[in-house]
Amino acid sequence: MTASPSTSVPLTPADRDRADTSIAESNPLPLNVPLATLATLAQQTRDAARQLAQCTTQERKAAVLAIAEALVAQAPEILAANQADCEVAQAAGIAPALYARLKLDAAKLQAAIAGVRDVAELPDPIGAVQIHRELDTGLVLQRRTCPLGVLGVIFEARPDAVIQIASLAIKSGNGVILKGGQEAVRSCTALVQAIQQGLAQTSVNPDAVLLLTTRAETLALLKLDRWVDLIIPRGSNSFVRFVQENTRIPVLGHADGICHVYVDAEADLEQAVAITMDAKVQYPAACNAIETLLVHAAIAPDFLPRVVPALQAKGVEVRVDAASQQVLANTSLAQPLVEATQTDWATEYSDLILAVKVVPDLAAAVAHINTYGSRHTEAIVTRNRQTAQDFMAQVDAAGVFHNCSTRFADGFRYGFGAEVGISTQKLPPRGPVGLEGLVTYQYQLVGEGHLCATYVGPDACPFSHRDL
Amino acid sequence: MTASPSTSVPLTPADRDRADTSIAESNPLPLNVPLATLATLAQQTRDAARQLAQCTTQERKAAVLAIAEALVAQAPEILAANQADCEVAQAAGIAPALYARLKLDAAKLQAAIAGVRDVAELPDPIGAVQIHRELDTGLVLQRRTCPLGVLGVIFEARPDAVIQIASLAIKSGNGVILKGGQEAVRSCTALVQAIQQGLAQTSVNPDAVLLLTTRAETLALLKLDRWVDLIIPRGSNSFVRFVQENTRIPVLGHADGICHVYVDAEADLEQAVAITMDAKVQYPAACNAIETLLVHAAIAPDFLPRVVPALQAKGVEVRVDAASQQVLANTSLAQPLVEATQTDWATEYSDLILAVKVVPDLAAAVAHINTYGSRHTEAIVTRNRQTAQDFMAQVDAAGVFHNCSTRFADGFRYGFGAEVGISTQKLPPRGPVGLEGLVTYQYQLVGEGHLCATYVGPDACPFSHRDL
Repeated sequence: MTASPSTSVPLTPADRDRADTSIAESNPLPLNVPLATLATLAQQTRDAARQLAQCTTQERKAAVLAIAEALVAQAPEILAANQADCEVAQAAGIAPALYARLKLDAAKLQAAIAGVRDVAELPDPIGAVQIHRELDTGLVLQRRTCPLGVLGVIFEARPDAVIQIASLAIKSGNGVILKGGQEAVRSCTALVQAIQQGLAQTSVNPDAVLLLTTRAETLALLKLDRWVDLIIPRGSNSFVRFVQENTRIPVLGHADGICHVYVDAEADLEQAVAITMDAKVQYPAACNAIETLLVHAAIAPDFLPRVVPALQAKGVEVRVDAASQQVLANTSLAQPLVEATQTDWATEYSDLILAVKVVPDLAAAVAHINTYGSRHTEAIVTRNRQTAQDFMAQVDAAGVFHNCSTRFADGFRYGFGAEVGISTQKLPPRGPVGLEGLVTYQYQLVGEGHLCATYVGPDACPFSHRDL
Repeated sequence: MTASPSTSVPLTPADRDRADTSIAESNPLPLNVPLATLATLAQQTRDAARQLAQCTTQERKAAVLAIAEALVAQAPEILAANQADCEVAQAAGIAPALYARLKLDAAKLQAAIAGVRDVAELPDPIGAVQIHRELDTGLVLQRRTCPLGVLGVIFEARPDAVIQIASLAIKSGNGVILKGGQEAVRSCTALVQAIQQGLAQTSVNPDAVLLLTTRAETLALLKLDRWVDLIIPRGSNSFVRFVQENTRIPVLGHADGICHVYVDAEADLEQAVAITMDAKVQYPAACNAIETLLVHAAIAPDFLPRVVPALQAKGVEVRVDAASQQVLANTSLAQPLVEATQTDWATEYSDLILAVKVVPDLAAAVAHINTYGSRHTEAIVTRNRQTAQDFMAQVDAAGVFHNCSTRFADGFRYGFGAEVGISTQKLPPRGPVGLEGLVTYQYQLVGEGHLCATYVGPDACPFSHRDL
């Protein structure tokens, strides 16, 4: 069951940014009224999720395929709702980049529906036996994967995110509470209606998917630690940080993506230039793009005069430390160099800007990364295997790469079939997270009247601990 | 390097309990001075932990064995320090139960040292390859387990906890910051000195183990999210809850252990009585002991008149709902029954008290458990396999047991060789946690100059995603 669509005027992009900031500043949150209503809805989602958790592999697969069919059947209504969202957004002066993300044309919808069918075909993450062990005769332990319960997913304008997330949730046996951007409210409502109608044809209770449509509900959602097991925020860094700081529910995500390439003294120069270009220029807004380039002092005189003009030719603003500036003193450059300050080392530009620093050795590169990096993805370019191994052992990050671009840090590129998010926390799941991030496990112990007293004291019976 | 032993008078047990409460109430924490000093020490521990993380399996095993040898060599000093702690505690009127935990005699020390040698022999949790996959020719992904970094462990009086935790930390490649109870300060200092002297004979930097000795440092430790990766609290429920609510560092532990046995209509009566007795009486202070007994209405007239006198004979206070009281109206009992209130369903007695409730069916039992249980361990007694499977699928807990005692929920009994803690969180690690709770993983990607641009756009090269 969905909350009714909000009738308030969608916010302009600028308003939205300001609104996000004001959320982050208004703590504690005045949430009493929506919290009570939402708790009832969340309880309903949890009840539906508990039923869903008992569905078989085939039932969940069939439910995901039914979602795809319903989306095909209701494509006209979905596209019309999106058209209405787009018209309102354009009238409000939406930025072109945001408009491109909001717009759902027939081709984009078809691609998203193909994605749902791909999710249906993924291996079932539920019911996998991780431990199967006899503790004693007739006393058998199994550790089996099971759904987490209810996911809370908060995302920005892209309506196709609803399609992807709902199918991943159902595939993994979880209920999901979705909150999309205000601009996409008509699109999201039409999509969730289609998804629920699809589920209604299957053994999955449509209440397992709930759509929230107001900002107040977003805030209330973060307080529902009794009903929601995992929050997945998809939005700006500041929004993710706000979510992390304002909920006791575990959060799957990352606020920052401050990644580095370190070009070692023994790097292949051509490879180092190509990797640096790919990691910075190919898609600078991605979290796995680099923000700082570290260069060993011994190779800087050969490397910097090659890479900096190449970067500038692609429109990259290059910010350099004093040592880099000195090395580049006699290089003729298209653009003047900007001096890097302390702030640059700790900044995720998400743009065509790159900070450059010369370091005396591997230890200094590692120390810089472990101080300023966000534990996301770090790469070294070197022909020396031992140097690479030392770098990978000493750098504290979810991904440590040798002679390749940081941009490979991605669930699809890793072959997970889906990416739920990227985590920069130290504890698992870490790095790009596929369906396995939506499951947990449970210990099941089956006996024949076994008592603990049998295994303690002077006449204690020993355990067999035999893996089956 | 250890902080110098505190010279303040140890608290009495009653004081300690009050002090714990006052900590929980005095928020925000006035921590500025110790935080700065402690940060320097913590940084030192982290640096030592980074070196430790690069040690080989053999080096870490040798270091754990060196700890055992140093403890043997310094046993006289350790026992003398413990004797001094015990005398001060007795003079201050320590409770007998706490005294028993504080006291470290030669036999207890020997057993703890044997435990260290057992830890040395455990399989290495570090460097295990969880994923090994070719993404394309020459581009190979590995996911390998690695240490978390630095553990923060806060525990109560038992000095032998120092021995166990330090050896588990070194075995798993982690630094550890220890904070023991004030009563055990001399014992803990002597133990950590021995451990550090043992490590000094090996390739592990002794700074990897740090002992804190003042209460203010405990509070400061919770704020060190930059240097500490996991907090493991071992103490009272209220202390664990305080830790959970006052740190942004992940916490491995559980505040409550509200476990149930549900006796189904088709239970074997004798088995049901024996399991109930074992789960309540064998060690009532354990978190995996039961607090509430749920009984199907159809079997209550046969079961309750058998189990309640047996419980009372073992000194258990039985608190019953109205239906149970009615069933027991004609049973002659040694003690009068106490009426159970709503509060009882949500209380962990940790004592010889048991609440009893009659339920009409499985669904009511599951609903009660999912409302009041703490997601720890839940058991059903029934001869009906399908009923048991339904119970296990519907109950939300780390452990779901069939025809055996809840008291089996324990890392040693599960065959983990060690238990770091028991987690009642939904996300892994969940339930009893062995060495695997002290490790995380890292993605290592090795290429030959591979660029992401090769795999996008109209001429995109496909990934092979071939597991190796």
